[in-house]
Amino acid sequence: MAGSLTLGELAAMVGGEVYGDPATLVRNAWPPQDCDAHSITLVDSVENLPKLEGCAAAAFVAPLGVTEPGRPAIRVANVHAAFVAIVTHFRPRRERSVTGVHPTAVIAPSAVIGRDVSIGAGAVVGEEAVIGDGAMIGANTVVGDDCRVGAGTMLAPRVTLYEGAVVGERCRLHSGVVLGADGFGYRLVDGRHAPVPQLGSVEVGDDVEIGANTTIDRGVYGPTKIGDGTKIDNLVQIGHNCRIGRHNLLASQVGIAGSTSTGDYVVMAGQVGVRDHIHIGKGAIIAAMAGVTNDVPEGEVMLGAPATPVREQKLKIAAIAKLPQLRKEFRELCREVSDLQSRLAERPNNSTLDRAA
Amino acid sequence: MAGSLTLGELAAMVGGEVYGDPATLVRNAWPPQDCDAHSITLVDSVENLPKLEGCAAAAFVAPLGVTEPGRPAIRVANVHAAFVAIVTHFRPRRERSVTGVHPTAVIAPSAVIGRDVSIGAGAVVGEEAVIGDGAMIGANTVVGDDCRVGAGTMLAPRVTLYEGAVVGERCRLHSGVVLGADGFGYRLVDGRHAPVPQLGSVEVGDDVEIGANTTIDRGVYGPTKIGDGTKIDNLVQIGHNCRIGRHNLLASQVGIAGSTSTGDYVVMAGQVGVRDHIHIGKGAIIAAMAGVTNDVPEGEVMLGAPATPVREQKLKIAAIAKLPQLRKEFRELCREVSDLQSRLAERPNNSTLDRAA
Amino acid sequence: MAGSLTLGELAAMVGGEVYGDPATLVRNAWPPQDCDAHSITLVDSVENLPKLEGCAAAAFVAPLGVTEPGRPAIRVANVHAAFVAIVTHFRPRRERSVTGVHPTAVIAPSAVIGRDVSIGAGAVVGEEAVIGDGAMIGANTVVGDDCRVGAGTMLAPRVTLYEGAVVGERCRLHSGVVLGADGFGYRLVDGRHAPVPQLGSVEVGDDVEIGANTTIDRGVYGPTKIGDGTKIDNLVQIGHNCRIGRHNLLASQVGIAGSTSTGDYVVMAGQVGVRDHIHIGKGAIIAAMAGVTNDVPEGEVMLGAPATPVREQKLKIAAIAKLPQLRKEFRELCREVSDLQSRLAERPNNSTLDRAA
Repeated sequence: MAGSLTLGELAAMVGGEVYGDPATLVRNAWPPQDCDAHSITLVDSVENLPKLEGCAAAAFVAPLGVTEPGRPAIRVANVHAAFVAIVTHFRPRRERSVTGVHPTAVIAPSAVIGRDVSIGAGAVVGEEAVIGDGAMIGANTVVGDDCRVGAGTMLAPRVTLYEGAVVGERCRLHSGVVLGADGFGYRLVDGRHAPVPQLGSVEVGDDVEIGANTTIDRGVYGPTKIGDGTKIDNLVQIGHNCRIGRHNLLASQVGIAGSTSTGDYVVMAGQVGVRDHIHIGKGAIIAAMAGVTNDVPEGEVMLGAPATPVREQKLKIAAIAKLPQLRKEFRELCREVSDLQSRLAERPNNSTLDRAA
Repeated sequence: MAGSLTLGELAAMVGGEVYGDPATLVRNAWPPQDCDAHSITLVDSVENLPKLEGCAAAAFVAPLGVTEPGRPAIRVANVHAAFVAIVTHFRPRRERSVTGVHPTAVIAPSAVIGRDVSIGAGAVVGEEAVIGDGAMIGANTVVGDDCRVGAGTMLAPRVTLYEGAVVGERCRLHSGVVLGADGFGYRLVDGRHAPVPQLGSVEVGDDVEIGANTTIDRGVYGPTKIGDGTKIDNLVQIGHNCRIGRHNLLASQVGIAGSTSTGDYVVMAGQVGVRDHIHIGKGAIIAAMAGVTNDVPEGEVMLGAPATPVREQKLKIAAIAKLPQLRKEFRELCREVSDLQSRLAERPNNSTLDRAA
Repeated sequence: MAGSLTLGELAAMVGGEVYGDPATLVRNAWPPQDCDAHSITLVDSVENLPKLEGCAAAAFVAPLGVTEPGRPAIRVANVHAAFVAIVTHFRPRRERSVTGVHPTAVIAPSAVIGRDVSIGAGAVVGEEAVIGDGAMIGANTVVGDDCRVGAGTMLAPRVTLYEGAVVGERCRLHSGVVLGADGFGYRLVDGRHAPVPQLGSVEVGDDVEIGANTTIDRGVYGPTKIGDGTKIDNLVQIGHNCRIGRHNLLASQVGIAGSTSTGDYVVMAGQVGVRDHIHIGKGAIIAAMAGVTNDVPEGEVMLGAPATPVREQKLKIAAIAKLPQLRKEFRELCREVSDLQSRLAERPNNSTLDRAA
């Protein structure tokens, strides 16, 4: 841990303005619930000021809108950038401890390794694989034959790229990611599920992040593709032949079945399921746990299973919530109608009583 | 990449019939959206012919039903087998680069390794483990003590078999698979969840495929079993003591709680959840995202959460979709009844008005 | 496998009482469906006695309430403890085969390794990592720089701790677990999702169990925390900044979004999804597949998506099940009202017919 600084020194570091005593001593930086009396914390909006109640922090980083901080503070336009700088001062990230190729890594003779590459202990790089300049391959990661890993890309420890997988530049693949396992395709032949050969590959664009233990299967004949700038969370499944657009956000535990495609800037929240062979239009948003069973138009917001445009689905949810009450009222109305029927039947001059059934 | 061939040469290779110029030069084979002017592509049914619109392919493989291909084609009965042969010609799979036991693999002295076994870099094989003839153990895979891996079985890189796991012949276990972790069983003792000892094992039959990052827990006292010919997709969870039948298809992200069993030929689509201690009958089909809470009869098709026979569930879904409309109509009917009540009340000779409440 | 024993010898071993012939020879112990004629099995309650039908077992372990076992038995108060002892006699767990640091493990010079630690083949331990006394680090597991692993903790083969992760004492982390991957946080800058720096860590308490392929992300500025005694199943996702209480039970495939907290003794069944920035009160129970979208009060039982208190949700489910019937009855009632309207209209002396619309 780095040494302590005064509030004034921290404010100068982040280009902020001191409120209260600039000599206030700060030793570390934490979220409100983890602070002691020598910590600085962050409040990122005026609405979140109540989070300081009961917080022991000596001071906090405050957005410009906070006019009466109530305790020592640094006011600054970009509170997150400022707090990142302060946290990094107190708890600097360790320089990566492995540079070059670790002696226990196993690199095929025909692999091509770029400049300034770091390959961790026990990592395996296959025949004719190409590792771009500045890439990092984590410990015990396996890069198959004929893979390409772009410049500046980080494969965490314990990642698997099956043969032929292609990853672009500046990507980050987290631990446990599997690219290029066989897709789930079978034909029933004589009572047995015969595997359909999975001859395609996986192609990941530039600036893609893929979360821990996420799996992306190889295509049947061509590539499964992930577009540039797309960010994928942990434990996501993307089936064979999918074509995910650029700048998508796919949250944890999403599952996308085979041959489905998405436009750019699609967002899927956690645990969404998407069926095979459909298209999710550009900018569509799929709410958590929704089950998408049909094409989704551009920009639509979908909710529920089966997924339905949000306005419609909210009406349904509200109607379901009131359904027990509706049933009760329905029984009551039945009684009232029955009562009306009895009353009409009792009338002496009722000439219209006779009806079929 | 292998050299180019003429359409005539390709047709001869796959036993097909040429339509158009047999001298058409082909250099590679791709799905329609990935083709350039020297590619051949595949249309697997007459209905899919529109997929050729805008496709640059020089030619395509067509089923016999296509009478007017419109561009050079190879007509053949089994289009997929033909296209697999063509793709494999242009992009042959590399012979496996590791044969024998890699010098960095760690094999326990008491392990028994069959003939023609391939064990990758960094793999670990435990005491008294038995690896069958022709099996492949991928790089950095860990086979625990007393495991058995059948002849011809492939364990991808980075698989874990806990001690005592048994895998049959000709299986394929993909990267990240974990067989035999402890099941999730606890007893509350003095306010703490005390683990119930998990003393059983995992037994996988022959010809089973298990997808990337799928987990199958060991049984409590006996085996958790996967039947012959069953295919399991990525990120599936199978709890302790489960007995999965033969030739099941379990799609991605399915979760099956402990002690549940299935008959043969059961199919579960993506993200299905199944509770503990129930039985899914032979040939049952569980639709995507369904939540199964009770035994399912043979051959039943289940939908929804809680899962319900499909016909019933579809009625429910339709009824829910129309529920907001029903509520509107109900309000209208209430007004009409109220109106009828007023009219009857207004009548001079109405002798039946008096009623309790 | 250890030698056979008589029923009398087994009864003496577990402090039970013999019913039937104490000379009955027993060679192994299995669940009912796996027994041959020389096996002993377990029936854990009177209600489960029918599970013995068709079971070949020579004898069984029975609770005291079983007065007429019908075949040789050992009656004992704690049947599970007794059966665990018997199973362990017949199939003793192998002593761990690795003790000390395997020569192929890669330990950073500045790492601190406690007494009686076992580190498996190919494992990697980073700079200044601290491994407590008696800890076991499985083969090919990667412990990052500055991690701390408590005394008596077991990391299975193929676990990843990112730099700075802290795991308490007597924990068990199963194969494929990933602690400390970056959380899923981005800001849209000029049409690109720019990663928000993830500067926090993961802190796991004592006596925690984490299932295979589960992922827990590091916090943004502070720790993601798992409380003492909490048990987490396979394939669970816990987002950045979460604070999970003590003695929680989180079943398989649960997903908890960022910054959510739980009290002590919370239970979540399989495939539950929980949104970000909410709190689940102490002792709350969330039923399988529920989707929690709001704070949950202490002790509440929640069901469905969106999750609703169980009594309310069950009313909704029942109402939905009867919805098609309700729609039918509603149509009928409409006809009856229409009929009443006609009859009133037909009456000669109906003076109230005229109404607007």
